[in-house]
Amino acid sequence: MIEPYDDAYFMKRAMQEAEAAYEKGEIPIGAVIVVKNQIIARAHNLTETLNDVTAHAEMQAITAAANYLGGKYLKDCTLYVTIEPCQMCGGALYWSQISKIIYGARDEQRGCIAMDTKLHPKTVLKGGILADEASTLLKRFFIEKRNLN
Amino acid sequence: MIEPYDDAYFMKRAMQEAEAAYEKGEIPIGAVIVVKNQIIARAHNLTETLNDVTAHAEMQAITAAANYLGGKYLKDCTLYVTIEPCQMCGGALYWSQISKIIYGARDEQRGCIAMDTKLHPKTVLKGGILADEASTLLKRFFIEKRNLN
Repeated sequence: MIEPYDDAYFMKRAMQEAEAAYEKGEIPIGAVIVVKNQIIARAHNLTETLNDVTAHAEMQAITAAANYLGGKYLKDCTLYVTIEPCQMCGGALYWSQISKIIYGARDEQRGCIAMDTKLHPKTVLKGGILADEASTLLKRFFIEKRNLN
Repeated sequence: MIEPYDDAYFMKRAMQEAEAAYEKGEIPIGAVIVVKNQIIARAHNLTETLNDVTAHAEMQAITAAANYLGGKYLKDCTLYVTIEPCQMCGGALYWSQISKIIYGARDEQRGCIAMDTKLHPKTVLKGGILADEASTLLKRFFIEKRNLN
């Protein structure tokens, strides 16, 4: 049986958000939140546009998903995010009690694994979905930014 | 010389925010952000009102302070918060590069010390200012909540 709604399908939607961030000169990270194969929130990093360090893709997606659901817990939800979440986003995901976090590429320096951020005991963390695409876009962004300065 | 603007002075302002949260049935935690003895942001926990796990006092104060300053880094700022920040707020403060974090009471379970959250190397963390007042209000809230259910 062909399963159109697999992890790659939803990660591609998160990558589209990352590309939207890239087009705005934002660090290109995107996220979607999914319940029963339905996307209920999509967001991309807006820290520059909003002048706000808290405006990571995941944070906005958590707020939007809770708004959609009418409740603050995301127990049956899956977050797809192109780059491994940081401490802040991992901490927010802890409070949300989200069911699954699926990321693309690792953030070896500031990701929640390196930082030893505690996730909710019920949360499953899985990485490596479209990792090359996610890290290539991020590298391209930083190379271009360096060349501009 | 009498110094009217000491840590207790600003922590009292943060306590007023915590009391405002308490009056709304929110977990009573309040915060202010200060630059050169001037309060540039004040906020209290609104997770219930906004249905949003990210609506901690510190998160809102960081966003408001950056908005006031017109830039996302809080390098010369001090955060006063009635209870030790959690992982999420500690992670946000890491990104903000805030100069000082002064908290009232420890959160032995979910505070950034117990959770081993990494702060920015330039950030000074200090606790114990009006700790009894902050923890008494929090305990009162949870006792009353338990008795209502």
